[in-house]
Amino acid sequence: MTTFGESHSERMGCVVDGCPPGLAIDIGFLRSELQRRHGESPYSTARRENDEPEIVSGVLNGKTLGTPITILFCNEDCRSGDYDTYGYAFRPGHGDYVYQKKFGIRDPRGGGRSSARETACRVAAGAIAKLWLSQQGITIQAQIDNIGGSCDYESLLQKAAQEGDSLGGTIRGTIRGVKAGVGEPLYHKLSSALAAAMFSIPSVTGFEIGSGFGAADMKGSQFIDHWNSDFSTQTNHCGGIQAGISNGMPIVFRTALHPIVTIRQGLDCITEHGELRHLPFQGRHDICQVLRAPVIVESMAALTLIDLMLQQPASDL
Amino acid sequence: MTTFGESHSERMGCVVDGCPPGLAIDIGFLRSELQRRHGESPYSTARRENDEPEIVSGVLNGKTLGTPITILFCNEDCRSGDYDTYGYAFRPGHGDYVYQKKFGIRDPRGGGRSSARETACRVAAGAIAKLWLSQQGITIQAQIDNIGGSCDYESLLQKAAQEGDSLGGTIRGTIRGVKAGVGEPLYHKLSSALAAAMFSIPSVTGFEIGSGFGAADMKGSQFIDHWNSDFSTQTNHCGGIQAGISNGMPIVFRTALHPIVTIRQGLDCITEHGELRHLPFQGRHDICQVLRAPVIVESMAALTLIDLMLQQPASDL
Amino acid sequence: MTTFGESHSERMGCVVDGCPPGLAIDIGFLRSELQRRHGESPYSTARRENDEPEIVSGVLNGKTLGTPITILFCNEDCRSGDYDTYGYAFRPGHGDYVYQKKFGIRDPRGGGRSSARETACRVAAGAIAKLWLSQQGITIQAQIDNIGGSCDYESLLQKAAQEGDSLGGTIRGTIRGVKAGVGEPLYHKLSSALAAAMFSIPSVTGFEIGSGFGAADMKGSQFIDHWNSDFSTQTNHCGGIQAGISNGMPIVFRTALHPIVTIRQGLDCITEHGELRHLPFQGRHDICQVLRAPVIVESMAALTLIDLMLQQPASDL
Amino acid sequence: MTTFGESHSERMGCVVDGCPPGLAIDIGFLRSELQRRHGESPYSTARRENDEPEIVSGVLNGKTLGTPITILFCNEDCRSGDYDTYGYAFRPGHGDYVYQKKFGIRDPRGGGRSSARETACRVAAGAIAKLWLSQQGITIQAQIDNIGGSCDYESLLQKAAQEGDSLGGTIRGTIRGVKAGVGEPLYHKLSSALAAAMFSIPSVTGFEIGSGFGAADMKGSQFIDHWNSDFSTQTNHCGGIQAGISNGMPIVFRTALHPIVTIRQGLDCITEHGELRHLPFQGRHDICQVLRAPVIVESMAALTLIDLMLQQPASDL
Repeated sequence: MTTFGESHSERMGCVVDGCPPGLAIDIGFLRSELQRRHGESPYSTARRENDEPEIVSGVLNGKTLGTPITILFCNEDCRSGDYDTYGYAFRPGHGDYVYQKKFGIRDPRGGGRSSARETACRVAAGAIAKLWLSQQGITIQAQIDNIGGSCDYESLLQKAAQEGDSLGGTIRGTIRGVKAGVGEPLYHKLSSALAAAMFSIPSVTGFEIGSGFGAADMKGSQFIDHWNSDFSTQTNHCGGIQAGISNGMPIVFRTALHPIVTIRQGLDCITEHGELRHLPFQGRHDICQVLRAPVIVESMAALTLIDLMLQQPASDL
Repeated sequence: MTTFGESHSERMGCVVDGCPPGLAIDIGFLRSELQRRHGESPYSTARRENDEPEIVSGVLNGKTLGTPITILFCNEDCRSGDYDTYGYAFRPGHGDYVYQKKFGIRDPRGGGRSSARETACRVAAGAIAKLWLSQQGITIQAQIDNIGGSCDYESLLQKAAQEGDSLGGTIRGTIRGVKAGVGEPLYHKLSSALAAAMFSIPSVTGFEIGSGFGAADMKGSQFIDHWNSDFSTQTNHCGGIQAGISNGMPIVFRTALHPIVTIRQGLDCITEHGELRHLPFQGRHDICQVLRAPVIVESMAALTLIDLMLQQPASDL
Repeated sequence: MTTFGESHSERMGCVVDGCPPGLAIDIGFLRSELQRRHGESPYSTARRENDEPEIVSGVLNGKTLGTPITILFCNEDCRSGDYDTYGYAFRPGHGDYVYQKKFGIRDPRGGGRSSARETACRVAAGAIAKLWLSQQGITIQAQIDNIGGSCDYESLLQKAAQEGDSLGGTIRGTIRGVKAGVGEPLYHKLSSALAAAMFSIPSVTGFEIGSGFGAADMKGSQFIDHWNSDFSTQTNHCGGIQAGISNGMPIVFRTALHPIVTIRQGLDCITEHGELRHLPFQGRHDICQVLRAPVIVESMAALTLIDLMLQQPASDL
Repeated sequence: MTTFGESHSERMGCVVDGCPPGLAIDIGFLRSELQRRHGESPYSTARRENDEPEIVSGVLNGKTLGTPITILFCNEDCRSGDYDTYGYAFRPGHGDYVYQKKFGIRDPRGGGRSSARETACRVAAGAIAKLWLSQQGITIQAQIDNIGGSCDYESLLQKAAQEGDSLGGTIRGTIRGVKAGVGEPLYHKLSSALAAAMFSIPSVTGFEIGSGFGAADMKGSQFIDHWNSDFSTQTNHCGGIQAGISNGMPIVFRTALHPIVTIRQGLDCITEHGELRHLPFQGRHDICQVLRAPVIVESMAALTLIDLMLQQPASDL
């Protein structure tokens, strides 16, 4: 998958290369996945994004051709003016400063390339991956584990909204139906690929598989997943991945997202000349992006898995 | 870097391609790094590995040529007989079963390809990467954060040794001297690359950057790293990486390793016919591989960083 | 560069990733290059392609951002009906049969993905590459060497048009201004990269560098390019590339294109059931695509060169 | 495949990654292929290379494990002294100058990294590829087409030996048994991959598929390969590749090699200070490397083909 587009460029989109031919594309499913990302919560951004995916290549009569699939989104309702307040000042905790240092130029409107808007492309591509994986009997499900440190987070969200603050949280993911043998030894492990995919999602600061950080506190005798006679295991501390390769058990993982750093209390920015400036909040932002994250986590997991499965030589299967 | 070799094949080694030409190779430094991996602790394996690195190409008169550098290790003291006890039975928590499912064949001696012995190659290659990074003013340091859930772990190790059990732990890493701008947006983020590198290390089950999982519990107002007027930040919750790109602050991260699953209490294996068998402990294994892990973590971080820095087009710098 | 789109899909386009930031995009130059590909000759297809490039991402206020640049083309004037004559029969010398065998599905309209229409994307991307190369003092020029075996080809074209036949030919390319040192040893040679790029162009059947096939007939004493005292050479039999790496002399090469296989005399097709059928000519096709090829050859050379130059680590330069 | 080693470094070798597991390695076949490269002709170099391949990883009990296979060669009989005559002067037509410009350092002994000695690694790796391809019913055969412009070349070789000169030539290759569908559209065509592989061989200056440069002189009505009712074609002007993808017919191609530029008449070198110097011939060199080239051409074709076939997703097959 290649994605393109800035938050406020004319279009965003993605090219999905290598999708198996003959796959039926259920456009309704794409829309419903994009709707999940969009969210309806009062704690999500008020920006009216047009998330209608336009498939302009690679599909004929509803079936994939095996050639690159391109999906476009229009960027309407771009109130770039909102961002004029910040101008070229660098916001804290954003990509503004590092993009400027790296490229010497940047699109200051709405986070430019590093805007969370880009995740719509991931969800669209992920939906196509899910359609194929589903044919192989594989399902991927992610859900909110906790927000602000609690699994009972409704009141926390309400409080954060009142205080003009934001909240982070964790997402738990489960992949079922993957046979033993997916993932390559040592440097292209399934675990490495999932980790890289999760850290590509904006705001992700942590990732663990199976018992994860908890496993570091266990003794070997507690951690061992004992065999059943059908080669499944009695526990799943390893999270379905052994030596980097799937073992046939459900693949379970957890992803941590930090709270959004654009908050209603305002932003302490810095100009390119090193002057500190408190600027009032502008634009439209979520109070908690964790609410919209499960479908993004699922999409990245799906894209990772389909990549590894399709890269496997036929001789492996 | 490409590595090769099984635990008990005649040789192991690595080919380091793309190393800048003209770099002075301090073989004494390679040896001292390999010695750190080898460890001297009574809780480490008694296997007398010959860790003398033999550089057979890519270096002339002590300087790199810009051509592939090959480092070989001999695998002496291979008491493969130790492993005959298990024969072709699948040990729990090892790569035995998944390799068999994936490849239909495997080297049963000493974990074969997935043996921790392979990490010697990573350390040797990492040492070369460190020599170059050091010239750029970059230092990488990893240390044990805790073992068995405690930073005061000497007694825990003693107890585990007595009980024939093993312990996991966490490693904390810090990279200093990286300028702002390293890492590519979205799909080749520095954070993704570090995560993938860490999960390629045997036994790793978790990885976090900056405040990591702790950040998920914070409010936005707590998490924001406020600017100093020199573009450094007052705190470093983001761990030196913003939007996937280094921001000039120290890069800090934490890696979790599960306890070793080969323990002196014996192993509940399964044969290829699905029969469960308790087999006595054989071979030589660590009680806690976390003791040897810091130099491996440093090496993988060094290799990740040098890759991203060398892949940066000249125009970025 | 990633391209997408079938001959008759709604849109075609390309994503150019890795373009240096801050490059001024001269849209007039893109248009003039596309016009060169389009051609005005009476021997070119009558299809009225809309070659207006629409840049929808990666450029702000006329300058590149360092993020992916997407260029879209609309596919108007798609008289797919023309192709109904062939239906699902496989034309000789086309991709019809191999796509069907490979993917089990294909877009039968206008050659689908393998249509020469796709080269518009290459030209647009190549024009951007040329703008950057031009800043480095590099120029790329390709011209027709001969058509139908002759450098005086006007009468041959006229005759072929009358006979309802088609003609092939060769293109000669010259790249000036490349410094010594571009290209990687052994497996990523500049010569390999150029060869692969040229063979990616539809109808290409041969490629040679410098004296090429003629060099095979020479003696060593004739072939040697003797030094001048400024490290240039008195002759350029090696075509500016030694051991796969540029030596500072002009890079010269020649590319052969076979004649178009869709001719006005009609086509002997085969159905999927193995029945042979002579079908009358349909659609709109060139008599000689060589007339339009120089700008495509230049574009692929430019893309190859910019890739190798940007992949060079800063340490090389 | 990754290769490593300089002409006169302690060892040379290659790592073959991705080889299917369970393949029986016939070491006798490797030796016979290496013997073909070595040659016995009086017109080949007198250097006594030790071409005994040492397989040090990836193979157990004669069968591949699916893990990286490493093959080592010792570089004995390194009379580096021979090369002292040239010292650091740049020979004409060699990689000396471009390596120095690219890397700022080089191994002056025997061509260093760009020595033809490296092709032993290609032949060893190619032999393994051939063993697998042979199981799929695929055979690859290359033979000398002509030398010095003639297919009756014995007298030409004799004359060149007497005159202290060298000769180039062409190799014709044929691959049989490849099913339709191998190769990827547009940018990873089978034709592009073969071209890149051939140009990676030292001294290659030209490559053509099927009728190649001759096709440029043909009319469309002559070039068309008409169908037989079994989907084979009556002629094979396209050389078994249509739109970059194999069509099931034999794949035929031709590769041109320029004459060796180190000749007994002596060499007009240039020092790094720009002084021209005629230096007497030193070292041991072939009069005509074309004699040894067929097995190298076959090996690169085999490696190209196995790569494309193994990269094909299972869904294609």
